[in-house]
Amino acid sequence: MTNSRLTVIGAGVIGLSCAWRAASAGLQVTLLDPAPASGASWVAGGMLAPVTEAWPGEEALLELGVESVRRWPGFAEEVAAAAGRPAGLRTEGTVVVATGAGDRAELDTLAGYLARLGRAVERLSGRELRRLEPALGPDVRGGLSVPDDLAVDNRMLLAALRAAAERAGAAVVESAARAVLDDGTRVTGVRTDGAELPSDLVLVSAGAHSAALHPVLRGLVRPVKGEILRLAHRAGAFPAPSRTVRALVDGRPVYAVPRNGGGLVIGATQAETGFDTEVTVGGVRDLLRDAERVLPGIAEYALAESAAGLRPGSPDNLPLVGAVGPEGLLVATGHHRNGMLLAPVTADAVLALLHGRPVPESVRAADPHRFRGAHQHPEEVARARVDQR
Amino acid sequence: MTNSRLTVIGAGVIGLSCAWRAASAGLQVTLLDPAPASGASWVAGGMLAPVTEAWPGEEALLELGVESVRRWPGFAEEVAAAAGRPAGLRTEGTVVVATGAGDRAELDTLAGYLARLGRAVERLSGRELRRLEPALGPDVRGGLSVPDDLAVDNRMLLAALRAAAERAGAAVVESAARAVLDDGTRVTGVRTDGAELPSDLVLVSAGAHSAALHPVLRGLVRPVKGEILRLAHRAGAFPAPSRTVRALVDGRPVYAVPRNGGGLVIGATQAETGFDTEVTVGGVRDLLRDAERVLPGIAEYALAESAAGLRPGSPDNLPLVGAVGPEGLLVATGHHRNGMLLAPVTADAVLALLHGRPVPESVRAADPHRFRGAHQHPEEVARARVDQR
Repeated sequence: MTNSRLTVIGAGVIGLSCAWRAASAGLQVTLLDPAPASGASWVAGGMLAPVTEAWPGEEALLELGVESVRRWPGFAEEVAAAAGRPAGLRTEGTVVVATGAGDRAELDTLAGYLARLGRAVERLSGRELRRLEPALGPDVRGGLSVPDDLAVDNRMLLAALRAAAERAGAAVVESAARAVLDDGTRVTGVRTDGAELPSDLVLVSAGAHSAALHPVLRGLVRPVKGEILRLAHRAGAFPAPSRTVRALVDGRPVYAVPRNGGGLVIGATQAETGFDTEVTVGGVRDLLRDAERVLPGIAEYALAESAAGLRPGSPDNLPLVGAVGPEGLLVATGHHRNGMLLAPVTADAVLALLHGRPVPESVRAADPHRFRGAHQHPEEVARARVDQR
Repeated sequence: MTNSRLTVIGAGVIGLSCAWRAASAGLQVTLLDPAPASGASWVAGGMLAPVTEAWPGEEALLELGVESVRRWPGFAEEVAAAAGRPAGLRTEGTVVVATGAGDRAELDTLAGYLARLGRAVERLSGRELRRLEPALGPDVRGGLSVPDDLAVDNRMLLAALRAAAERAGAAVVESAARAVLDDGTRVTGVRTDGAELPSDLVLVSAGAHSAALHPVLRGLVRPVKGEILRLAHRAGAFPAPSRTVRALVDGRPVYAVPRNGGGLVIGATQAETGFDTEVTVGGVRDLLRDAERVLPGIAEYALAESAAGLRPGSPDNLPLVGAVGPEGLLVATGHHRNGMLLAPVTADAVLALLHGRPVPESVRAADPHRFRGAHQHPEEVARARVDQR
């Protein structure tokens, strides 16, 4: 396997993480992306928050997220060591807060659900929350403290992952993949603009653009637009919170993720409007209004950037991680709101698949065959493939 | 005079207009700006609106503005012909509208004032306004139509003015002026970073940065920050108004200036916070909230850009246009909110001063000597200067 040519399509957080792991394991890795480290990964808020994202009916996603956040500190340390630069992990934890009565009822539902799952969450009054985070305004009436939900500076992480992947020998080619090529049985390469890249193995990690790359992915990944604002602290403005703040404001979710240097990333709208990355007036208005309700001091911050990204949504909000379709084709996409969170466990799973080893237990639910008349178990595919070499 | 070396400091709308006129008249013109066509002129909304800007006590400014807007169509045509590209004038006119009762009372004051000055303005109901501009929302309760208040696409204008100036022979040097040099009697040149530019004549048109360039301007020009948003029409969104819309929303002024292609420029906040060009959360929130009250359809527009500029404020809101201080020093600065509007009359006045001719009558109120123990009339200074050659 170590002589195999692996082409990774997409240099977002998932593609970079997998390329780094695969190149470190000795594969010849080519990372194909017309604009590496851009797109949804560049726009992202960087929450690593499986617990405060949890919702009844999405137990498999919660389990997968909890497994990945557990891997995060070790992953960050490994990336940092490999890259020679920090990966941007923040371990201050998360508070989730409510404003109106309906919002508090919804948080009660979440707290009860998490308690039934045996996950400890601490319920706090508005006053207790403001003692933790003085930036929270008087409209915050109560909430939960979830110290194990972390955050990462997505742009520091992307820079570190790219450095780590390149140091491990991965070659970054700034070109767009148009299609995965196969001979009916196994993959043969990737077609880019005007060229073909011969490959024994192909990993599709092209986020919202994945579905167009091979018929087996058709209809399984769709773009879910998210608008986000980046705020910078200005002299004299109230200090930002140190924890991630997730809030419900009259039923609308909004979050603020702190960055080193006193900045905040405010997100995120959700809209299913196709491949549309324009920031709308209505989106910015909603984010500012809701974020100011929770953190009134941000009025004096600088609005440094507004941007929209396309989350790769899957039909059931779980990602697609596994072998599927022709031999040699792996996918790691459909991570929706959770690409940063799920990068460690996804990269570990992809590495296991490349070695013909079992994927982590929690990743089995992400097997892409759940959407197809699965003809073969993905580990068997990988094992068969590796055996042939 | 045609062999005189004129250095124009500042390539905003005023500096470019004056440099173009002077170079066309045969002077050797050097235009000095570290970033030509940027700053407040680049950020500007582009209203040419002396009537709807009028306010009791500022009659001299109204007269100057009316004189300049009268010159605008000819100016635009001349610029376009000289540049070989359009200057961006829009002649659809302006409506000024009110929402709350207090806003309507304020518009009544403006209408009465303009009537006493003999200026015809048409008062319209909310329904009549919506017939003119269907984009106006139901909160608009009444207003005025002012067809003679025009607008210009500031960025088209800047590009055309620069092309016209360079075609006429003006040399653009991308360097920052640090001080106007004189020998105690007359100007000798301009000090830039690490160099001196010998000059017989110097025009200070450096906007908010003018006061630092010569002691005679100290304290006379200050930065007045304005935040502005640029919106782009999106497929399916309601069409933008064709006229400039100026509004009072619960006492706060907001305006929307249409651009070719269906876009809108929304402005503008006012803040006296020094040389600060960061866009604040509070500024954007106010602009969006107020603009949406007046033009609800913009919620679906793209927020393409947010920016802040520094208007050059003067102590009495009139610009400073004239000769002052050592022989050979001219100033054309302090245009505050009216740089685009006043560019034609300012450039004509500066050309008159360079030729020792009288300035247009309306420009006399802008004589910078009004703030000093004026030792000499500016036209005498100019005449003396030209006579010496």
